[in-house]
Amino acid sequence: MQPTTTTTEREIAEQPQSIARTLEVNHNEIEALGRELSSRPVTAVMIAARGSSDNAGVYAKYLFQGFNGVPVAMATPSLYTFYHTPPRLKDIFVLGISQSGQSEDIVEVMAEARRQGALTASITSDARSPVAAQSQHVLKLETGPEKAVAATKTFTSSLALVAGLSAAWQQSQERKTALSALPGLASATLAAARGPVDLSAPTFRHISRCVVLSRGFSYCIAMEVALKLKELTYVTAEPYSSADFQHGPMAMVEPNFPVILVAMRGVLHDHLVELAGQVKQRKADLVCISDSPQILELGDSRLPVSEGSPEWLSPILAVMPGQMFALRLSQARGIDPDVPRGLSKVTVTR
Amino acid sequence: MQPTTTTTEREIAEQPQSIARTLEVNHNEIEALGRELSSRPVTAVMIAARGSSDNAGVYAKYLFQGFNGVPVAMATPSLYTFYHTPPRLKDIFVLGISQSGQSEDIVEVMAEARRQGALTASITSDARSPVAAQSQHVLKLETGPEKAVAATKTFTSSLALVAGLSAAWQQSQERKTALSALPGLASATLAAARGPVDLSAPTFRHISRCVVLSRGFSYCIAMEVALKLKELTYVTAEPYSSADFQHGPMAMVEPNFPVILVAMRGVLHDHLVELAGQVKQRKADLVCISDSPQILELGDSRLPVSEGSPEWLSPILAVMPGQMFALRLSQARGIDPDVPRGLSKVTVTR
Repeated sequence: MQPTTTTTEREIAEQPQSIARTLEVNHNEIEALGRELSSRPVTAVMIAARGSSDNAGVYAKYLFQGFNGVPVAMATPSLYTFYHTPPRLKDIFVLGISQSGQSEDIVEVMAEARRQGALTASITSDARSPVAAQSQHVLKLETGPEKAVAATKTFTSSLALVAGLSAAWQQSQERKTALSALPGLASATLAAARGPVDLSAPTFRHISRCVVLSRGFSYCIAMEVALKLKELTYVTAEPYSSADFQHGPMAMVEPNFPVILVAMRGVLHDHLVELAGQVKQRKADLVCISDSPQILELGDSRLPVSEGSPEWLSPILAVMPGQMFALRLSQARGIDPDVPRGLSKVTVTR
Repeated sequence: MQPTTTTTEREIAEQPQSIARTLEVNHNEIEALGRELSSRPVTAVMIAARGSSDNAGVYAKYLFQGFNGVPVAMATPSLYTFYHTPPRLKDIFVLGISQSGQSEDIVEVMAEARRQGALTASITSDARSPVAAQSQHVLKLETGPEKAVAATKTFTSSLALVAGLSAAWQQSQERKTALSALPGLASATLAAARGPVDLSAPTFRHISRCVVLSRGFSYCIAMEVALKLKELTYVTAEPYSSADFQHGPMAMVEPNFPVILVAMRGVLHDHLVELAGQVKQRKADLVCISDSPQILELGDSRLPVSEGSPEWLSPILAVMPGQMFALRLSQARGIDPDVPRGLSKVTVTR
């Protein structure tokens, strides 16, 4: 890899430190919120977020359902901002995720939740932002300023906060201990993926489209890697859960079609091995992001993730080779990743 | 339009009759389920579905939240089938939508819901299917056999059942009356869109990608039209809520980039006029599906939807020009729409 030259690249490299600092600084607030969640009736969770933060919300959806046993719904902000017919939120835990804390529609969801007496919390970089102002609990992203337009370090730190909150809510010491190993594994992943990404990404410089597949806890990472590709390379990158993909869009795969598969160790491993076989049978050009040697083996390109994290934490590592891949592909296509066309850092939507 | 030759085209044309019959045959069951929903504590709705049925589920998400006041979550089947850590579903209304009623993962969600004592219902073509067997209430799609691989008439009839159920749950006579006008408006829409679709669709035969945009009640239609395009034309068609689109993917739009906008009358109208202006400023090739003359006016191609339905029902009409567009584009690309590559009618996924 060349010397670090772009802001995007620097911020990708800062992730291990950002995650460590974010978890450390928020330790007490996470514990307090976890205790409150485990001591009051919470019938469901509602998550309000946009863009990369929405992908962090999908991660939360799997963790809060799988470990904390509550149904999780993604908010539909237009019902608050345009239709003015929000649902009943009384015993709902409403979590807003907004890096800037400025998004009007997220503010509106949080404000309505407060009016209805719901328990509210937000994940944001700005503790004085409008989203934070509507939240009883604020978990602050301690990443330092994120200057690149494409979110990277705020994304992984948001996931780390979600992971910490789920563990605190469950009061699981085992999970908290696993979380403490994350920054080290993140450093190792960034180092291990560098060479393979530098070799592989430029060879995709002529693609105009691709799909990104995963399932389960890492499904959110397929969504996030696809978003990075769209933001940084203008490639039409579509994320799919493997099950949805098999329900139709598989038809798109013709010889040489680029498929990125995010497939981590765990209960979905063998299912995803099978999926890899199906797309290879159609002669796809397969990029595997994985901590499993068996999965990597199946890829035409192999982007390794450090082994050693439990499946529920591994998405936070898996996104990193994907971010690096999008960055290098951007550069190979002659794009300045720090200034992608037509994007601004703060998007205010109702 | 040529004489009706393909199964897909025949099934698209049958939709007014399918909707009318489905609503009529299920009238008593819809009323009974609506009464049960309004008389017991329902803290949230959980919807389990895949493919086109999942898009029908997104429609339900807006209606049940906006009119019936309950949070709605989309199920994550892998938590039931792979992780074996389903959330608590006791006071949840669990709705499975599966045309074939065969999908293993939907069956598993329904079975778990029953084990936990939740109220369950399914929408399916086969009242003796495994999904139906796990449901206390079965709403049966009375479309006759759907032989084309791409779902069309089962999709719109699923939406009609969701609309009827939401109205019955709310005990709204006004909404029930509006629903009864739907088959007539569907016929008028099919007739009105035919000519414009036949002119417009073939001119897109060389595209490899496009986006489909909407927001609010019709967001599900952007998703469904994109899915039809992928299934029938192999074009990489990506659906977005306008808000998510403005949060990043807008960067993809370069001169001549194909954008399909589904924009119906109602509270989002002016917002979508603005969005149309933004993509036109980037010189997109804009296809408008709308019941609003002002929106149609903004399109390079104009696919009209019959006026006269309230906004919450209009998605069921809006999908029809999109289905026809996908069909004609498929034919213009030399594809047999009845036998798209690599798709089977029943997809069994865990």
